[in-house]
Formats: sequence, C-alpha cells, structure tokens
Amino acid sequence: MDQGRMCRRQPELLVVGASYVALECAGFLTGIGLDATVMVRSIALRGFDQQMAGLVTDYMEAYGTKFVKNCVPKRVDKLSSGALQVTWTDTHTGSEHKDTYDSVLWAVGRAPETKALGLDKLGVHLKKESGKIIVGADESTSVPSVFAFGDIGEGRPELTPTAIKAGKLLARRLAGQSNELMNYDNVPTTVFTPLEYGCVGLSEEEAEMRHGKDGIEVYHAFYKPLEFSVAERDASQCYLKVVCEREGDQKILGLHFTGPNAGEVTQGFALGLQCGATYSHLLQTVGIHPTCAEELTKVNITKRSGLDATVTGC
Amino acid sequence: MDQGRMCRRQPELLVVGASYVALECAGFLTGIGLDATVMVRSIALRGFDQQMAGLVTDYMEAYGTKFVKNCVPKRVDKLSSGALQVTWTDTHTGSEHKDTYDSVLWAVGRAPETKALGLDKLGVHLKKESGKIIVGADESTSVPSVFAFGDIGEGRPELTPTAIKAGKLLARRLAGQSNELMNYDNVPTTVFTPLEYGCVGLSEEEAEMRHGKDGIEVYHAFYKPLEFSVAERDASQCYLKVVCEREGDQKILGLHFTGPNAGEVTQGFALGLQCGATYSHLLQTVGIHPTCAEELTKVNITKRSGLDATVTGC
Ligand SMILES: Cc1cc2nc3c(=O)[nH]c(=O)nc-3n(C[C@H](O)[C@H](O)[C@H](O)COP(=O)(O)OP(=O)(O)OC[C@H]3O[C@@H](n4cnc5c(N)ncnc54)[C@H](O)[C@@H]3O)c2cc1C
Ligand SMILES: Cc1cc2nc3c(=O)[nH]c(=O)nc-3n(C[C@H](O)[C@H](O)[C@H](O)COP(=O)(O)OP(=O)(O)OC[C@H]3O[C@@H](n4cnc5c(N)ncnc54)[C@H](O)[C@@H]3O)c2cc1C
Repeated sequence: MDQGRMCRRQPELLVVGASYVALECAGFLTGIGLDATVMVRSIALRGFDQQMAGLVTDYMEAYGTKFVKNCVPKRVDKLSSGALQVTWTDTHTGSEHKDTYDSVLWAVGRAPETKALGLDKLGVHLKKESGKIIVGADESTSVPSVFAFGDIGEGRPELTPTAIKAGKLLARRLAGQSNELMNYDNVPTTVFTPLEYGCVGLSEEEAEMRHGKDGIEVYHAFYKPLEFSVAERDASQCYLKVVCEREGDQKILGLHFTGPNAGEVTQGFALGLQCGATYSHLLQTVGIHPTCAEELTKVNITKRSGLDATVTGC
Repeated sequence: MDQGRMCRRQPELLVVGASYVALECAGFLTGIGLDATVMVRSIALRGFDQQMAGLVTDYMEAYGTKFVKNCVPKRVDKLSSGALQVTWTDTHTGSEHKDTYDSVLWAVGRAPETKALGLDKLGVHLKKESGKIIVGADESTSVPSVFAFGDIGEGRPELTPTAIKAGKLLARRLAGQSNELMNYDNVPTTVFTPLEYGCVGLSEEEAEMRHGKDGIEVYHAFYKPLEFSVAERDASQCYLKVVCEREGDQKILGLHFTGPNAGEVTQGFALGLQCGATYSHLLQTVGIHPTCAEELTKVNITKRSGLDATVTGC
C-alpha cells in the first residue's frame, strides 16, 4: 500500500461495522474523496430486508466504497509514520490480514450508559445482554413511576422520531390528557446511503416467517429514475417491492424502495400502511408523473411469476 | 429596455399564461439564465389552492422571474432588429403598454382537435365551450361503442397518469375482465416549478365551499428543509397544510405541500387519502428523520388558532 503514497493521494479510511451509521458514513466519506473500506463482520444492515441491503452495498461498491466481508478487527497499531496498522481475522478461514489506514472509524453500535445510573438500587430491571431497560407498552419499567423511552428501551427502534413521539405521548398520559399509547408498528425509516433506502412495515424475510412463503405475494420492479436517465447513470440498484398478504384484499405488510429521496418517497406510504392499505388501494392510487414514487402505484409483477420486473418506457 | 442591450446580456423572454406549464417553463428558463417575464391574465394556477399558488409565484419572483399581472397581449410586431415588440392591455386600467423581447412563449392552454374528426356525423356530443367530448363515469360518449378518455374528456384532469390508468381500466372492462371504474377522486398532482408544489384532494377554497368555513379545520406549518438550512437559503415559501373535516375523526380532505421533491413527498400521502386517512392517522404515523415529508406527520397548528405556524428546532 506504501507505493501509492504521494502528496495528493486519497486519504485511506477503514470503517468498522455495517450498520446504517457505518454505511452512511462510508458513503459520504467516499463521496468527498476518501478511499473508504467497510469491514463487515457478517451481514450489512442487520434487521433490514437483506435483498434491499444488498442493493445498497452493491451501489456503494459501484461508486468506489470497498467492502471486506466476514472479517473482524483484532488490533490497531500506530506506526512511526503516523499511519494506523489494522490487523484483522477472516472469520471464515481464520487467517489473519494487515493493512494501513490514515483513520479508523468505529461504527459498532452504542452501549447504553445504564450502569452508572444506579438503577439496580431502585430495582429497575435491565435486559442483561443489551444493558437496556425493560419497558412495557406504556413505557413503564419494573418500578412504578420510573419510565423509559427512546434508545434506552429494550427492543425499541433507535430512531429520533419514535423517541420524540413516545415522550410526547407519555407526557400526555402522565398529565391525564390522553390514554393513547405509542404505536411501534409500521415505523418507517430510511438509510441515507448514496443510494437511499426507505422502508415501512415488514421485511420480506419477516413477512415470510410470519405468514409463510405461500402466504405472501411480493410485487416488485426495477425502475429508472428520470434524473438517472438524463445523466445516463446506471440504475441497476433502483428497485422497489411491496410485500402483501396473498389472500383476500392483499393487505400491504411491507414496502421497500431504493432510489433518490427514498425518505421523502416512503413517508406518505407510511400513512397508507397506518390506514390498513391493501394492494388494491395502491393500484387505485393515481401516480404523479414524472416521479420515482409513482412506480410504487404501478407495481404489478409478482416475484412468484418469475417475469422480468424491469419497468420500460416513460 | 434598449439601454441594456450588450453583447452578453440575458436573452429576454415573455411567457404568456400562468398555468402550471407556463410557470414551469418560466421557472427553468429563468434558471438557465433567461430574463423571463410571465404575463398573467387574472390568477396563477387556476384550479389550484390559491394560497399555495401565491407561494409558488412569490418564490419564483424572489429568484428573478418577473410577473406582469392583469394584462393580456394585444399584438406582437417583429422589429427590423429581429426583436419582438409586444403590445398589451392592462385589464384593470385599460391602458396599453409595449416592450420588446427576444422570444415569446405562448402557454395559453390546449384546444382539442375534435372538429376535424367529424364526430358530429356520428352524433358524439361535445361540450360547446371547450370542444371536448362529454363522457360518463365509464368513459362512454353519447354514442354506444364510442369511448373517450384522457385530455379529450370534458372535465377530466389533464394528466398523463389519469389518461393511462383510465385507458387500461376501459380496456379491461371492454374485454370483460373487470367492472372497475376509474376513480377520479383524490388524483394527486405536482407543479414542477423551481419550488415544487404537490397536492392531493381538495383545495382549501373547494373544501370551504363544500363543507363551510366552520366545517373544516386547516392544520398548517412553515418549515425549513434541511438542504435550505445548509445552504442558508430563505425558506419563506416552504409550507404545508392539511385540510380536514372539523367534526368526528377529522377526515383529510386535501393535503398541500411546497418544497423540494414535492412530487415524491405527495405520492404516498395520496395512498393515505385513498384509504380514507384522518388527522389521527396522520398524527399516529411516525416521521422519517431527517426529511421534509416528516413535517406533514407533525403538523398541529390550526389556522383558526392564529398561532405562529413556524416549525422551530431540528
Ligand atoms: C451517527 C448516527 C446517526 C443517526 N442518524 C439518525 C437518523 O438519520 N434518523 C434518526 O431518526 N435517528 C438517527 N440516529 C439515532 C438517533 O440519534 C437516536 O435514536 C436518538 O437520538 C434517540 O434519542 P434518545 O433521547 O433516546 O437518546 P439520545 O439522543 O442519545 O439522548 C440521551 C441523552 O442523555 C444524556 N445522558 C446520558 N447519560 C446521562 C446521565 N447519567 N445523566 C444525564 N444525562 C445523561 C446523553 O448525553 C444524551 O444527551 C442516529 C444515530 C447515530 C449515532
Ligand atoms: C408542456 C406540458 C407539460 C406537461 N407536463 C405534465 C406533467 O409533468 N405530468 C403530467 O401528468 N402531465 C403533464 N402534461 C399533460 C399531459 O401531457 C397530458 O395530460 C397527456 O399527454 C394526455 O394524454 P392523452 O393521451 O389524453 O393526449 P395526448 O398525449 O395529447 O395524445 C393525443 C394524441 O392524439 C394524436 N391525434 C390528435 N388528433 C388526431 C387525429 N385526428 N388522428 C390521429 N391522431 C390524432 C396527437 O398527435 C397525440 O399524439 C403536460 C402537458 C404539456 C403540454
């Protein structure tokens, strides 16, 4: 690697971890000119639909981010040159590897600072493995009058809007103004990687687990954003899928979208799922042309059919 | 105006008309460096919510597009210099004005070419004023076996997705595969002006007409898109409102949004309205942070309250 060291070489960065935080950072740091490598222990975007996760990382790879898979860092040594020498283990082969980087970014998750709080003295129950506080649907803990919400709650999504909404609703309940509980179903979220990924509801894997492979129908499409057409950019990873119940009205269980502005696209569909949207509702919804989001209202090829899902024409 | 004529002066353009087509063209032509003026006969974006229309044109004016209001062109003369001299009348004062332009763009609407078709010989009824074909809910005309859909149908929205969807559904009905009619309610649409404007459902004026001023509740917010904060751009026209029934569950009647990617933002909410979304559904929907669309899930200030509707904080 030393042979590349010239005055204006790209700074080399290792990002350890493959959560959305890791991928977002690796993505924008590649974008501003760093030579970024992501070290993945097992899978990228754990908890997210894995087909979609693959599209996100494929796109990043196509735009220059490198991925080292099935590897865990073992040690980091600072060389006399100032460079950081990272030693890691390949978990499949057990072999050891080394390389040097200008910086190493740890994105290996956040541990809750619950120990220092002395919660044990109050008798507030924690989940041993995570150190998070065990909470009920009303954000209550094992001790009456102690409540917990946001990232600190065991099993809660680690997202700003859920923390804020849960807090507001709790405050209203404590003030006797309402009985409304926070609804943790159908919480939409977006991964702000170079190709954004937005979703709401169940991943395909989760839907399959709950309803069985024959109990779901997955409609999907590969589409080309207008802005990609103009710039003649490859759109291989621009994709969407709608996971529905197979029987009856085909209730929508999950909706997944990669493409520009995925967060803006996904938000409104989350209102739809909140209202119990079905596949028929989706097809009855008129598209807004030209947008990427309109492709979601036109999706009609099932995975089961095996037909080509590429959207053609305008 | 002649004093400005130098080698590298901006080409001057007059756009006649103030429909979405006129404003979109004036907007992007200003954007690529033309000195564009829009001549408005009476109001901009007729048929759209007029508060939103005002925000769209205010933003355009702030970015250099000029507006000449309450004026209609009378004649255009080509001068020996090649410039076009336009004479117009101010409809309020009756006075006449002149100015020269390099080009004049007519965006005064489209007239259907129904005369040349000989429809009168078949007995197909047209609407006299518009020349469009009178159609039923199933796209039928006054002559059995003659159908009409798309822009040519009297009273139909002039939009690509409605034309396509209506045609597909008609084809299925004619082939005996379905009885489903095209649903022309809650057709979302977006004006792709420099500040985009997306909407679905009723304008505030229309909602007021149908339900009475006391029968509706309008929730609204001025918000600042993240990309505007970073670039320190003025966000005075970034605004959203949700028009609801005032009684009961507060069914959403109309939803309006100006801001970046308004089309992408609006599409999913159209699914919500298709499913009968209420204001409670909206509030139960968790936001995606950071997006502009999430502001729609947090809107809580009513117009009636008179409170400041500016969103503060992150
Ligand atoms: C890099 C990164 C990017 C993210 N991007 C997004 C995103 O795009 N969208 C999104 O929705 N979420 C995002 N998140 C997640 C989001 O930040 C969290 O879900 C959210 O902040 C949770 O809010 P909270 O109030 O539960 O916890 P926090 O925001 O972590 O607040 C906890 C507060 O408690 C304080 N504290 C800790 N211990 C004590 C003590 N003993 N005494 C007093 N105070 C204490 C801390 O200093 C902190 O201020 C991101 C997170 C990271 C790390
Ligand atoms: C500048 C502009 C921008 C627009 N932007 C948008 C937008 O962003 N989004 C959107 O949804 N809509 C937009 N529209 C509207 C959209 O183009 C129309 O609603 C849509 O094209 C209507 O489809 P249609 O099939 O009814 O008519 P058309 O697309 O007009 O098709 C009618 C066809 O019939 C042909 N024809 C006419 N007479 C005869 C004849 N005698 N014999 C044979 N053929 C004939 C015409 O040549 C034409 O090809 C825009 C329109 C304009 C003018």
